[in-house]
Amino acid sequence: MSVETSHILAEHAFDRSLVRWIMKRVGNPSISIRLWNGDEFWVTETRPVACMEFCERRAVFELLRSPSVGFGECYSTGLIEIHGDLLAFANEVTSAITRQRDGRYYGPRIRSMLYAIRSNTLARSWRNVHHHYDLGNEFYKLWLDERMVYTCAYFDTPGASLAEAQVAKLEHVCRKLKLRPGQKVIEAGCGWGALALHMAEHYGVNVVAYNNSSEQVAFAREKAAANGVDNLVRFVEDDYRNIDERCDAFVSVGMLEHVGLTNFRRLGELIKRSLKPEGIGLIHSIGRSHPQRMDPWIVKHIFPGGHVPSLGEMMAVFEPQQLSILDVENLRPHYARTCAMWLENFETVADEVAEMYGEAFARMWRLYLAGSSAGFQSGTLQLYQVLFAPRGSNNVPWTRDYQYLGEPGTH
Amino acid sequence: MSVETSHILAEHAFDRSLVRWIMKRVGNPSISIRLWNGDEFWVTETRPVACMEFCERRAVFELLRSPSVGFGECYSTGLIEIHGDLLAFANEVTSAITRQRDGRYYGPRIRSMLYAIRSNTLARSWRNVHHHYDLGNEFYKLWLDERMVYTCAYFDTPGASLAEAQVAKLEHVCRKLKLRPGQKVIEAGCGWGALALHMAEHYGVNVVAYNNSSEQVAFAREKAAANGVDNLVRFVEDDYRNIDERCDAFVSVGMLEHVGLTNFRRLGELIKRSLKPEGIGLIHSIGRSHPQRMDPWIVKHIFPGGHVPSLGEMMAVFEPQQLSILDVENLRPHYARTCAMWLENFETVADEVAEMYGEAFARMWRLYLAGSSAGFQSGTLQLYQVLFAPRGSNNVPWTRDYQYLGEPGTH
Repeated sequence: MSVETSHILAEHAFDRSLVRWIMKRVGNPSISIRLWNGDEFWVTETRPVACMEFCERRAVFELLRSPSVGFGECYSTGLIEIHGDLLAFANEVTSAITRQRDGRYYGPRIRSMLYAIRSNTLARSWRNVHHHYDLGNEFYKLWLDERMVYTCAYFDTPGASLAEAQVAKLEHVCRKLKLRPGQKVIEAGCGWGALALHMAEHYGVNVVAYNNSSEQVAFAREKAAANGVDNLVRFVEDDYRNIDERCDAFVSVGMLEHVGLTNFRRLGELIKRSLKPEGIGLIHSIGRSHPQRMDPWIVKHIFPGGHVPSLGEMMAVFEPQQLSILDVENLRPHYARTCAMWLENFETVADEVAEMYGEAFARMWRLYLAGSSAGFQSGTLQLYQVLFAPRGSNNVPWTRDYQYLGEPGTH
Repeated sequence: MSVETSHILAEHAFDRSLVRWIMKRVGNPSISIRLWNGDEFWVTETRPVACMEFCERRAVFELLRSPSVGFGECYSTGLIEIHGDLLAFANEVTSAITRQRDGRYYGPRIRSMLYAIRSNTLARSWRNVHHHYDLGNEFYKLWLDERMVYTCAYFDTPGASLAEAQVAKLEHVCRKLKLRPGQKVIEAGCGWGALALHMAEHYGVNVVAYNNSSEQVAFAREKAAANGVDNLVRFVEDDYRNIDERCDAFVSVGMLEHVGLTNFRRLGELIKRSLKPEGIGLIHSIGRSHPQRMDPWIVKHIFPGGHVPSLGEMMAVFEPQQLSILDVENLRPHYARTCAMWLENFETVADEVAEMYGEAFARMWRLYLAGSSAGFQSGTLQLYQVLFAPRGSNNVPWTRDYQYLGEPGTH
């Protein structure tokens, strides 16, 4: 063996042990590794679900520097490649990480609180939401359903398509709120308006829907006119914090994640102020089984300023206002499937996206969708629908039969 | 006017203004007042729902000293009498108090935490539970349903009797747990055994049920033998903290209220340890819309050592263990009706109770049942059923259809 060969072998051994060390830190997922130098090995003895290729040596150091941001950025720029099924890879790695972190509580909780100190001022909130949503309607149209619903769907029947499951979700929310014609509904954070339009069209309620993304509001207003419900729905281009009306029902689907922990109390005050004493409300939000800060890569590249709360943390919205919780439903498996379906749609237009926004963006978005699906599949992420009412209200259903069988029961 | 007459009138005016001051502090309920000296007046201009008589002057000072304990003790000993419907009186006073306290948060929350520092040691816990439950099976038989279920019933149909609604509750719990024949269930705090027996008889599961009240365990064992399920159900006379087995389902109905806030974390550890990774659990407990200490009279005379937690406080059981919440249902109106039905039953045997335990005890118990019903009616008290599973388990139902329509769906 020449000195050079033995030098190369020693270097290989060093690189491999570095990668093994990284893999150990993420719980030893059953994947295989391919290095830039041609070296290949399995992380565990179990058959790998996919192969992770380090295309250049510096990808290893990026992961050492920051496992989450490093991996996300290397995948986006192509320094890391995944061969095989990206979703299977994401599921395997996420479940390995969560298995390993099982049982930690105070560390994540303290980081969650420290993280919350980054406050969401009005100005920053506007910027944060724009970062994500003003990618343009054209982008989201490519891979969302026709109603442009960008929140967890509800697969009430096993074979439901994404579009069907999104309508089922809108229905599920409306049923829980026991909407009656002529009622006034406030929606905080209405996206492209699908829920507001559904409520007006199918329940004959008057909706005021808030959203601070101008492109989305323009889209929603156009739809309202086209569907002939612009007399029932008013889309307001403004921050939810400027709501100053009263309503029979308050609803917010997929906004709480953007609000930030430190603003929960103020959101609760606003709800209490807006809701009539016999009113009812629903907040639909991504959640956690325990307090945990956001994934650093997601914060840096996807959702700046967000916070995904545990159910306990969510109580900061309700308990100081003595809003009493009527019903909480966890739709976690539904969001795993929703994200997987978005990913499927996205794959069919990935080339188009790469042309519009660049290859790195397309790869980043693919990873975000696969990672989100894996997060819900593994239980790192939860999806809570929280139904609530002012504490003293007896205008509440006795049972939940009505959500499944029809009319609410009054005893 | 003689000097004496004017002296009497001045004294009357003073007493009346003292009572008015007390009424103002409890939110001016629409009741009338009768004093020992024959003076009578309405507290508000609204027609009174009942009349509260101060039979002796010292009752006023007892109320000044401590509104809750003073009232409870004076009513028990007959220093205060309620003329008219006791439940209507309790509802009116409770809702007046809660209307007035609306909006307070930090004060009650801090008192709730300070109160929690009273720890529930094993020895004290035993004593506390005995205080309430070892009044004797004979006492509870007088006014509970035939199955001796001493927790919130579930009125799934409007005309349901108490006995029917208690069976419906047992069913509702079993359905939520998706019990399958041959599974192992641990029940913590099983009362007279109705749920354990129901699970064994109707779902063919093996139950280990814990209770530290020997009289109740004896009763439950007898029933199990009589119903021919003593091969499926094992009643253990021991504190729940000594549970050291593993199970497919963990259930606890009406025990958390006795556990005490400082023991929530340990209860969670025990559940995590007992539950298989694909297991499921349910905790059914009285709750609050926001943290609040127990009523001092209830603590002194009815439930020493208990704490009724808010949903946020309950999360101390689940979040540190990364148990994820699947489903929360609030059955508050059902408990208002359950307590009202217990009160109705109790009134029919009140004389018998007075003979067995004394007049003061009978009056105390009547007030406790009326006050509890009023607490649930007004929203001072809530009733939560919390369904949960280890975070990573995907052995969870997709929708809640199965709770209402039959078999759980798997997608």
